[in-house]
Amino acid sequence: MTSINNSFSGTETDVVIIGAGPVGLFQVFELGLQGIKAVVIDSLPHIGGQCRELYPQKPIFDIPALPQINALELIDNLAQQASPFDPEYLLDNRVVAIKRLEQDKSLEHKFLLITDKGKHIRAKAVIIAAGGGSFEPVKLKVPGVEPLVDKQVFYRIKDLKQHQDKDLVILGGGDSAFDWALELQKVANSVTLIHRSSKYRAAQSSVQLVENLCSKLKMQLLTGQVTELITENNTLKQLRVSGKDGVTRRIELDQLLVFFGLSPKLSLLKDWGLELHHNQIKVNTETFETSQPGIYAVGDINWYPGKQKLILSGFHEAALAAFAVKSALTEGKRVPLLYTTTSPIAHQRLGVSVDLY
Amino acid sequence: MTSINNSFSGTETDVVIIGAGPVGLFQVFELGLQGIKAVVIDSLPHIGGQCRELYPQKPIFDIPALPQINALELIDNLAQQASPFDPEYLLDNRVVAIKRLEQDKSLEHKFLLITDKGKHIRAKAVIIAAGGGSFEPVKLKVPGVEPLVDKQVFYRIKDLKQHQDKDLVILGGGDSAFDWALELQKVANSVTLIHRSSKYRAAQSSVQLVENLCSKLKMQLLTGQVTELITENNTLKQLRVSGKDGVTRRIELDQLLVFFGLSPKLSLLKDWGLELHHNQIKVNTETFETSQPGIYAVGDINWYPGKQKLILSGFHEAALAAFAVKSALTEGKRVPLLYTTTSPIAHQRLGVSVDLY
Repeated sequence: MTSINNSFSGTETDVVIIGAGPVGLFQVFELGLQGIKAVVIDSLPHIGGQCRELYPQKPIFDIPALPQINALELIDNLAQQASPFDPEYLLDNRVVAIKRLEQDKSLEHKFLLITDKGKHIRAKAVIIAAGGGSFEPVKLKVPGVEPLVDKQVFYRIKDLKQHQDKDLVILGGGDSAFDWALELQKVANSVTLIHRSSKYRAAQSSVQLVENLCSKLKMQLLTGQVTELITENNTLKQLRVSGKDGVTRRIELDQLLVFFGLSPKLSLLKDWGLELHHNQIKVNTETFETSQPGIYAVGDINWYPGKQKLILSGFHEAALAAFAVKSALTEGKRVPLLYTTTSPIAHQRLGVSVDLY
Repeated sequence: MTSINNSFSGTETDVVIIGAGPVGLFQVFELGLQGIKAVVIDSLPHIGGQCRELYPQKPIFDIPALPQINALELIDNLAQQASPFDPEYLLDNRVVAIKRLEQDKSLEHKFLLITDKGKHIRAKAVIIAAGGGSFEPVKLKVPGVEPLVDKQVFYRIKDLKQHQDKDLVILGGGDSAFDWALELQKVANSVTLIHRSSKYRAAQSSVQLVENLCSKLKMQLLTGQVTELITENNTLKQLRVSGKDGVTRRIELDQLLVFFGLSPKLSLLKDWGLELHHNQIKVNTETFETSQPGIYAVGDINWYPGKQKLILSGFHEAALAAFAVKSALTEGKRVPLLYTTTSPIAHQRLGVSVDLY
């Protein structure tokens, strides 16, 4: 066993955090307060995750005690808060394997993580904070769709302006399809919403609103499936839709918006043997541990009864996960709560000097 | 029934929040995002709660994305964040009764709250965010203690300087007693820790540290009970302590510090029929509802497995409680998550204008 330890040439750390979004960054801070070191791995070339990718300049209003902040500032603040604990950021690296080193029960660094760039990291625990970035839209499976993506076929809305005054067809029966249909109806030339059945997963109130608009002829709602994309000079002109009524229709359009939901980008989620709830990782709300001992999940990627995909919930989860990791690494000893306002240990770890007198 | 409604001359609101500390203020914001109005009642004459009372100027380091902020700034920010929702603050009022109006099942405003100033408020739900301010130290029951309190007998440490170079006796067997004994031992002239038995509730590591200091004669640890305070000219000079060994000792001292734990100040907590865990109110982590339907508890006053008394946990709890209240008030309809970055409804409620294009 010692030979393995001696020959190991990768990085050793206490905890690997997968994901450098806001919750991953705050996880560094909470672990640091507990005296635990972390390496943060992210597939993006910079910290900040989807939060920074999707809406860097848009204001966020629901971070407690920050009435208005944009994503870039939020990330800057969180990175600054984590900095006293000197985390190692391993960016532009995607985790391709997590192995549990079973051979030696006494081994402290039970996990070996390997990235697509061939980096090897050993850790005592793993915290998955991979967030929304771990998912990708379920694709439309019709021949010829690929070259049209982001030109006339879209899986997400980045800029409403792009869809203004267009004839739009929206596919899907869930909240995203209905919510965007309602939103786009205000700016598009026309909106046709197509779902394969007349059973919708969207909120009843949204379905009601769509049906009202349809009865006023402001939208169309069809039941059917797209079977063909009809193009002219590489431009999408029409869809062939086979209806549940047995009739095949042709629908003219400028753009096709597909909202079939999300699927985990990391097929690894399943390989790791983590119990899932839909696409999210089931966790215990006491410890935020997954079904795999020593592997924790925080932020948008986890699920428990009542879960809301709020950044602030991720912060709370990161704090409780840090207590649980600390307790696990100290063999279940009670972990005292260190108030950052008064605890000399917390001040020492933060590298700050506070006059208690 | 209508006659009661017509004759009711108090305030009517959606939700009463008991406690205007940081979590109570953020609760206003989260309810507001859901389109729910709130009245906040606090027994203090100002908002901010214990957080503002105990350490107004001391820095806090563990509020996410705020690397350093003091309590006054924190409260200001939270009040500003809550302000678009125009809460009514009923300060300097203590809730003395919560009545469930059982007579009419269809009544929306199911709860009647009465304060010590005779204010009557009707609400559809109640959220208790009363925090640490709802508790008071368990008192030492020995004749003559009352006039010495805050002169030579202390139930909490406000300023370490006050105890510098003194001969201290500390009573208690829990974390507070041991943690303060360890902290004060560094600055006091002498520290004697007395507990009624040799079984301690404090963390094993703290007990170990105290025992090590005792063996180096830097502290004393006694088993016994204080039976008499011996004063001279109204000044406490000695304690009479009857030991478990049958011996009665006299101990000279300058100050007596009593850490017997906390008991709920609101005897009401029990009157309300809320299930407790020690001194905290048991809640469901999905809804933060207590054992009493329609009554919720968030922040330091609640308990669930894994609970840590962190402000940031209170923020998360307030968010989830708001979803649960909204769902209860709309008869269990699914409550959609409104991202404050992109949701037009959230922007309208916040009174902000965001260019989505």
